[in-house]
Amino acid sequence: MEKIFAGIDLGGTTAKLGLFKEDASLICKWEIKTRKEDGGSHVIPDLAATIREKLDAQGIPFAALEGVGLAVPAPVRKDGYMERCVNIGMADMNPAEELSKLLGGVYVKGGNDANVAALGEVWQGGGKGYSDVVMVTLGTGVGGGVIIGGKIIEGCKGMAGEIGHLCVDWEQEDDTVCNCGAKGCVELTSSATGIARYARKLLTTTNEPSMLRKADIKKISAKMVLDDAKDGDALSIKVVDHCMDYLARMMSLITMTIDPEIFVIGGGVSRAGQYLLDILQKHYAEKIYMSKDIAKIVLAELGNDAGIYGAAKMVIDAR
Amino acid sequence: MEKIFAGIDLGGTTAKLGLFKEDASLICKWEIKTRKEDGGSHVIPDLAATIREKLDAQGIPFAALEGVGLAVPAPVRKDGYMERCVNIGMADMNPAEELSKLLGGVYVKGGNDANVAALGEVWQGGGKGYSDVVMVTLGTGVGGGVIIGGKIIEGCKGMAGEIGHLCVDWEQEDDTVCNCGAKGCVELTSSATGIARYARKLLTTTNEPSMLRKADIKKISAKMVLDDAKDGDALSIKVVDHCMDYLARMMSLITMTIDPEIFVIGGGVSRAGQYLLDILQKHYAEKIYMSKDIAKIVLAELGNDAGIYGAAKMVIDAR
Repeated sequence: MEKIFAGIDLGGTTAKLGLFKEDASLICKWEIKTRKEDGGSHVIPDLAATIREKLDAQGIPFAALEGVGLAVPAPVRKDGYMERCVNIGMADMNPAEELSKLLGGVYVKGGNDANVAALGEVWQGGGKGYSDVVMVTLGTGVGGGVIIGGKIIEGCKGMAGEIGHLCVDWEQEDDTVCNCGAKGCVELTSSATGIARYARKLLTTTNEPSMLRKADIKKISAKMVLDDAKDGDALSIKVVDHCMDYLARMMSLITMTIDPEIFVIGGGVSRAGQYLLDILQKHYAEKIYMSKDIAKIVLAELGNDAGIYGAAKMVIDAR
Repeated sequence: MEKIFAGIDLGGTTAKLGLFKEDASLICKWEIKTRKEDGGSHVIPDLAATIREKLDAQGIPFAALEGVGLAVPAPVRKDGYMERCVNIGMADMNPAEELSKLLGGVYVKGGNDANVAALGEVWQGGGKGYSDVVMVTLGTGVGGGVIIGGKIIEGCKGMAGEIGHLCVDWEQEDDTVCNCGAKGCVELTSSATGIARYARKLLTTTNEPSMLRKADIKKISAKMVLDDAKDGDALSIKVVDHCMDYLARMMSLITMTIDPEIFVIGGGVSRAGQYLLDILQKHYAEKIYMSKDIAKIVLAELGNDAGIYGAAKMVIDAR
């Protein structure tokens, strides 16, 4: 009987799931709604039920299910313990252990969603073929995951890979406070939110002409800034340059700590593609003095599927 | 026949050597001069000869020598290749391979001296009992080593653990250029050199009274600053506080990247002991927003022997 692995990427709105063979081939993927009511108490039972149903629908015997990887949007300790999952409302629990109980003792391995997505990109995405990889997800915030020797680095309190909260602006030129409580986090300077915020700042504090001025200032998005920058808008170019310079600061700090082979850039902002990478590469190269042979920067390839791939790989490796 | 391991800590002035049993007991330790003449070409042969001699003198058969760990003051790649060892003059070579040839094929594992010292502290020093450890050596510069899961993290170009070159002062308040070519490195702000430099700066740019003013300003050392700070000298206290605040910046950056269990603080500056750790702990705790359960900070315990212990452990693990 061929062994089957499930990868789950639990999010605040939906849970994405996939069934995989050990050779990384995806049998099927699907989503279910994340029911946050009642303190998130339905979430884990819903996942158990949908896996049983899907196996059944695919004609796969339950006994073929060798393991389940479960990515959650919260820091997870090495033993699977999760102190608090703010977005879903679950707290003080071991989600992997609970899911395992509901799946008749099938091995379940838990992990943080950003770390798990990084592992997915290393397994089958932009980081394929590398073993020391840092994933940087540029979305509403800045997420990340650190992979060394092909394995997720969780850290002792599950805080490893929280690279969005590396401080890159100690002087706090921008007074915005991060969700984490600090100032100067790269999440503030270089996320989609950060790009839009800096554009609004330049638009309101200067008289510099810009294509962005045609839009309602409240509705300015990172995508608009990046599109206009590509079209040659000087103010937009300045914004992208500034925000990527701060991201390169973060990358240089990571390099002097763990010296990865590549950085994989994902998230909505990364849709700007090679244009963005070129700017980032320039700033990053300027900041590494100790070697000319610096880490490559590549785009993520799996998009929203990185989590299910990584979750499957995590449990395949952990067995 | 009991297996014997040699640990070598090759420095610019002397090479320290130790013979160990696998259970970490030190049989003997000794030093030889590092002969830097002729492009360092005598260095590796001298090491081979002294190991053979010492085994003989101890009545240990050469065949008992199971492996040799060789720490060098340069970045070393995973395969042992060393691009350049500035202090000794050796370049473009694999020192471990060469030593192995001269020892009749005995397995030799090479590593960077700061990384190896970190491993020594984890094996038998301040980091004993922990597996995710960052060592910070505060001497003329700031060195370091990153240990995850009990193993040295080398990085893909041997740059991992070069934490003295984490930038903690992007605005470059201080215009001093680091040996690495960058500005704002924590090596500039928080090494013994950095502490003395900041003291001189406050002494020359303010009229604040200080016990330090009794000394020739050119001869002010980190030790004098730390001693006077302990004796309540306000200016010295200000200097120590400033320099340890920058060091805590570095520690917070490392924490959000790999989240170690403890930091082990070594090097000459660490002789200031618990007094220094208390100041460092205060600044570090202020900078970690994501968890109250932050990494411990402890003192290194092996002093100059950390390198030979770590080198022995490195080869014991690598066999």
